[in-house]
Amino acid sequence: MAGCQLLSEMENWDSDLARVLTKYVGQDIMDQSIGDMVLADLSIEDMAVQTTREHLIEIGLQRIHKIGYAATGVQEILDLAGVPKGSFYHYFRSKEAFAQEVLQRYASREAQRWETILGDDKLPPLKRLRKYFNELVKVYGQKGPISGCLLGQMSVEVAEHSPDIQSLLSSAFDDWQQAIAALLRSAVDRGELPRTTKADELASFLLNSYEGALVRSKAEKSDEPLDTFIHFAFKVLLKK
Amino acid sequence: MAGCQLLSEMENWDSDLARVLTKYVGQDIMDQSIGDMVLADLSIEDMAVQTTREHLIEIGLQRIHKIGYAATGVQEILDLAGVPKGSFYHYFRSKEAFAQEVLQRYASREAQRWETILGDDKLPPLKRLRKYFNELVKVYGQKGPISGCLLGQMSVEVAEHSPDIQSLLSSAFDDWQQAIAALLRSAVDRGELPRTTKADELASFLLNSYEGALVRSKAEKSDEPLDTFIHFAFKVLLKK
Repeated sequence: MAGCQLLSEMENWDSDLARVLTKYVGQDIMDQSIGDMVLADLSIEDMAVQTTREHLIEIGLQRIHKIGYAATGVQEILDLAGVPKGSFYHYFRSKEAFAQEVLQRYASREAQRWETILGDDKLPPLKRLRKYFNELVKVYGQKGPISGCLLGQMSVEVAEHSPDIQSLLSSAFDDWQQAIAALLRSAVDRGELPRTTKADELASFLLNSYEGALVRSKAEKSDEPLDTFIHFAFKVLLKK
Repeated sequence: MAGCQLLSEMENWDSDLARVLTKYVGQDIMDQSIGDMVLADLSIEDMAVQTTREHLIEIGLQRIHKIGYAATGVQEILDLAGVPKGSFYHYFRSKEAFAQEVLQRYASREAQRWETILGDDKLPPLKRLRKYFNELVKVYGQKGPISGCLLGQMSVEVAEHSPDIQSLLSSAFDDWQQAIAALLRSAVDRGELPRTTKADELASFLLNSYEGALVRSKAEKSDEPLDTFIHFAFKVLLKK
């Protein structure tokens, strides 16, 4: 019942926007978000608040990723979401708190991506890592729908001015780095990398170099810096 | 005469700000900017306009580098410069045109830095490169007065939304990369690197990885990512 109500409410959303969101986050994730709310057995009112919050976070993620934190206006988010003017602070304590939710959404979605690809033990570790970075280049390179990494972007634009956001960024990057380091350790165990490999340092260097290649790809309007990153990562650094 | 007028006008600048600027850009560069105007033999009126423009560009560089392009207001720049409200467009066509001048100022100052350190042939090439990156870490790392690289920052925040700024960023990065590539070729000639070194690709990877380390150092509020960059650059990638 509650699920049907929610779905019918969602049908009232601007359909173009829903299409863009679905394309961006993937149908599976959209279905899962709705499913989570149905399973949590929320009241219709709570679900409506929750749905609107979800909707605002998705639109915020799109806009902040596309044009940056400072350039994104709270009013613009409400307008895009078709939510009444002035009601932003009903859903979020502040723009900064909103950005934290946006970041958490992005980071948990990216964690799903690395868990899926890096955890697929049907492939040898380094092949998984290559598949993973190839996918990132496809999604966040110049041919993707929104180029660049939101974590890198918020690090550059906001980290210095918001201790809460800085600490969130640090922990999201650290989780990401640990996932890559764990994979490098598997590669050592499988004999794909030498025993002397310092997995944590190498994972940090690879991740940061990928972030730098994304920055440069924006300056050049080209994926060449990302191709150069893939080349040095897999032909030089990840060699036995 | 004109030089004295200019110097006396400069003394009217907010002295704290002048101290910060001098600390940031270095006394040599401040003296040289004044010297250039004196040598160009401008009229007092032209020099006043020129001085105000210079002053606005310096303050813009500080603020955009510190808080970002979108967050920096034109009015704030005028207030900080003590220049009458509403007169910004007397000096610059638009905020975007102003940002281009700011970027050019930053890029030409950075070019002076790499020309000086990388061109010092009293040291072997790779020692010069190490000295150069050590200096960058000191200036733009977490212990520097303003952390991060303005080119990287503007690439992330603005490149996608301004073709003029994107093209300026691309050309500034390319010049920088070429300077590093030229130094790597000297290192090959001196037998410090193998003959098979692909200088352009390696220079690109080093430069982009440095940019990525700066991004991560902001997220971590730590220079550790920069130390990791220096380690992989000089202990792994730049080895014979």
